[in-house]
Amino acid sequence: MTSSSRAQAGDLAQLLGPRGNRMTVLLRPGLRVETMHGMIPHEQIIGKEWGREVTTHLGKTFTLLQPALDDLLRDIERNTQVIYPKDIGYILLSLGVGPGSQVLEAGTGSGALTVALAHAVGPIGHVFSYERRPEIQEIARGNLERFGFADRVTLKVRDISAGFDENGLRAIFLDLPNPEDYLSQVRAALQPGGFFGSILPTANQVSLLLAALKQNGFGFVEVSEILHRYYKPIAERLRPVDTMTAHTGFLIFARRLVENHLET
Amino acid sequence: MTSSSRAQAGDLAQLLGPRGNRMTVLLRPGLRVETMHGMIPHEQIIGKEWGREVTTHLGKTFTLLQPALDDLLRDIERNTQVIYPKDIGYILLSLGVGPGSQVLEAGTGSGALTVALAHAVGPIGHVFSYERRPEIQEIARGNLERFGFADRVTLKVRDISAGFDENGLRAIFLDLPNPEDYLSQVRAALQPGGFFGSILPTANQVSLLLAALKQNGFGFVEVSEILHRYYKPIAERLRPVDTMTAHTGFLIFARRLVENHLET
Amino acid sequence: MTSSSRAQAGDLAQLLGPRGNRMTVLLRPGLRVETMHGMIPHEQIIGKEWGREVTTHLGKTFTLLQPALDDLLRDIERNTQVIYPKDIGYILLSLGVGPGSQVLEAGTGSGALTVALAHAVGPIGHVFSYERRPEIQEIARGNLERFGFADRVTLKVRDISAGFDENGLRAIFLDLPNPEDYLSQVRAALQPGGFFGSILPTANQVSLLLAALKQNGFGFVEVSEILHRYYKPIAERLRPVDTMTAHTGFLIFARRLVENHLET
Amino acid sequence: MTSSSRAQAGDLAQLLGPRGNRMTVLLRPGLRVETMHGMIPHEQIIGKEWGREVTTHLGKTFTLLQPALDDLLRDIERNTQVIYPKDIGYILLSLGVGPGSQVLEAGTGSGALTVALAHAVGPIGHVFSYERRPEIQEIARGNLERFGFADRVTLKVRDISAGFDENGLRAIFLDLPNPEDYLSQVRAALQPGGFFGSILPTANQVSLLLAALKQNGFGFVEVSEILHRYYKPIAERLRPVDTMTAHTGFLIFARRLVENHLET
Repeated sequence: MTSSSRAQAGDLAQLLGPRGNRMTVLLRPGLRVETMHGMIPHEQIIGKEWGREVTTHLGKTFTLLQPALDDLLRDIERNTQVIYPKDIGYILLSLGVGPGSQVLEAGTGSGALTVALAHAVGPIGHVFSYERRPEIQEIARGNLERFGFADRVTLKVRDISAGFDENGLRAIFLDLPNPEDYLSQVRAALQPGGFFGSILPTANQVSLLLAALKQNGFGFVEVSEILHRYYKPIAERLRPVDTMTAHTGFLIFARRLVENHLET
Repeated sequence: MTSSSRAQAGDLAQLLGPRGNRMTVLLRPGLRVETMHGMIPHEQIIGKEWGREVTTHLGKTFTLLQPALDDLLRDIERNTQVIYPKDIGYILLSLGVGPGSQVLEAGTGSGALTVALAHAVGPIGHVFSYERRPEIQEIARGNLERFGFADRVTLKVRDISAGFDENGLRAIFLDLPNPEDYLSQVRAALQPGGFFGSILPTANQVSLLLAALKQNGFGFVEVSEILHRYYKPIAERLRPVDTMTAHTGFLIFARRLVENHLET
Repeated sequence: MTSSSRAQAGDLAQLLGPRGNRMTVLLRPGLRVETMHGMIPHEQIIGKEWGREVTTHLGKTFTLLQPALDDLLRDIERNTQVIYPKDIGYILLSLGVGPGSQVLEAGTGSGALTVALAHAVGPIGHVFSYERRPEIQEIARGNLERFGFADRVTLKVRDISAGFDENGLRAIFLDLPNPEDYLSQVRAALQPGGFFGSILPTANQVSLLLAALKQNGFGFVEVSEILHRYYKPIAERLRPVDTMTAHTGFLIFARRLVENHLET
Repeated sequence: MTSSSRAQAGDLAQLLGPRGNRMTVLLRPGLRVETMHGMIPHEQIIGKEWGREVTTHLGKTFTLLQPALDDLLRDIERNTQVIYPKDIGYILLSLGVGPGSQVLEAGTGSGALTVALAHAVGPIGHVFSYERRPEIQEIARGNLERFGFADRVTLKVRDISAGFDENGLRAIFLDLPNPEDYLSQVRAALQPGGFFGSILPTANQVSLLLAALKQNGFGFVEVSEILHRYYKPIAERLRPVDTMTAHTGFLIFARRLVENHLET
């Protein structure tokens, strides 16, 4: 097995602390982790076996783990409104995104989906991510750098009504309030049969998008929503938790068709 | 963009037909697709632009598309009881599986999760998949070959009570009715902090697994379930469909801890 | 206790048969129950203790039970598109309907909600039920008679754009595709603070109704939906069933306000 | 219409205030309502038309409405762990409870279900409610008196392992953590074919109850759960709210069968 059993400089490390606290850090000698329960120098973490405990200067213990993508996303999630893991997993499957894929998204936002896409396409794939607001895209850039994915992603500041630079793409995802306004631009950048996806909070937005998809030559349209319910993990008292997220967004997927009037 | 805009020999092609019929074929000159609405020689498909229509000898038209992983999984799903896309996306995220990952699963079953894992780890990752029943694993082998993933997966026929050949792994998933019986074997093969996952249909099984996880030094346990609700994609009459899948399984994730009594 | 422990002529009886078959009959000497598994004369049922078994002329056994309202509603449900028990229970609570209530509904449809309302208001309450299509209302009349509620309900054939005969009512429920067109009529018939309710299948209809409620002086608006998930009732393998009803309708409730410009 | 259009002494009145505050009061001359936004003498409310506004001595306005059962239940809900409206509506339907019914429950708790049962059985029905802890039953007594239902309910302080005083009942509901321990007592008090119901938070408890129901001659067992999802009631931005109650309890219903060995 290639992956090391010990934390090394340059690794992403996750610290799980008292009361389920979670934080993710990129290990670099000379730095230190600041927690609500005291401080830990990175040197004390580097070289430690994954799964073991580390102790703050106040004597509180944290467990040292390698983060999953799910953990990275939750880390982003804490700070901003983002796409949730329950939705991201299904988005990746539905867009056919995997190692080596080239995929485009707009807008970048705080970069939760960007991170997930960059993770999934791997070092030989690539992500093109458009965003109108430069200051927001800088947050995404920070997240991508922190997780080591900066070189897999081309970030562009652009109002996409001007269109995309890429074409012949296999998958495009719009995380914008008005995707219906950009379908001709999506169509121009997408290969025939290519995958389009979007996530929208309101039913009204979904209706607008559905009408526009029909008018712009998209087919095989699918609308769905994913509900994720956690349980209290207690063997002798198994039951769902008291409250859950009731809604994040409606997921819409479609595929670019070749217009009939172009067929000969 | 590297991916071709036209179907080529060796490509997986998806044909979407009348009434939403879907079928996936590996394009090879000399073969032909048999549908309920007539036959199409592969030669007639190869060279065709993705997104266009192809016609059977009975004059019925099918749309030619590149399949997403989601489509491949649905194709498997039709024939056997499998893990659903809604669950698979979340499993991949929660296990931290991505390009280059080494991951182990048992049992193989008909290979739906195996295909998804092989897709996600990419050409430089690897999947080890154990199954007790040789005849079942042959179905999985067929699916892996059909989708071009055979070389990314090592299939083993084995009762896993005898343990695994691998060790230091980062992620192991058990798709078996009694995962609680194999946690010491999982522990031996998993690196400290490594990810364990399972899916179980009944609450009673979840309780048994939760108790066993506690006894075997696993922590950060999470139990959840995912509900996926489709909508009728009609702009002016947006509403959920009439019926939905009410249950596939409870998802359980945990991480291998280092025992306290081993710490020095 | 006043209710008899034995089935009597005039009672509603429920027969639960092989494979969970259910049927409800009003016991009358001289009649006979026809089942897929043979016939039973009513005389053979009358005088029998509730909970016991009765046998068809083909030797198949059915269990004799007193039906709950839930059972009556399921009986109606089998034949037509109706409001479901999961929704009806909440509708009754939200409209404040109980013994002695006077309540109005339109349209009658096949009478599932009418039966539930008639049951809840009891012998001293009353239900006014409007329906545009006489042939449909006859189905409801049959159901009401079968369940012994005919004298608690006044059925009227009317296009309600002409308004209602009643006024000062405490609760009105519209089970129509376009309730937004009748809110001034509802307002005229409802006492200040009175309860309005409706059930609608599509999100688009809900949006139309919400806008109209605002314009017509209704407040305290609530929109919700109820999902009902059954489990397989097996102690050692407890789990949800495989499929469930994904959607029946969105429930909308509001209360008539007194306009500010009328306040003095 | 018999119900008055104006609030009268002895009526239950609901005051809906700024930010959706709700409170329910029994109107009695001489008393006054204390709110966070000031005080209102009951005299100022009595004689006022339902749906109008009343003003506190600090100048804040509240809307005067007649409460529905749903409102009364929410009022109880605020203070204690209770059965929710979404569940209560379905419980009433499934137990066949309506005007004139005689029904038994244990334990009383804070009286949310007791209030709902008392409302549903009306003035000619009756509720018998058992509770082991006298101090808890006093809370229920207060709620029943406040809502005017005291004379419809007989409250008894009793450990029900000693059995019930009543027999030949048509419906019994146990809201206790261990209903499986009292099924022989339930059986003795229930008429053949009578309805049994319970609500339990954990899957483990449901399994215990299911096994006991089988052993004690109950049949037609149903297990289910009800999810209630609210929407933001905004016409142009219709969407579910962000969070919802994920779980209140599993609902279990069954019917008392006559044992085969007693049949002759």
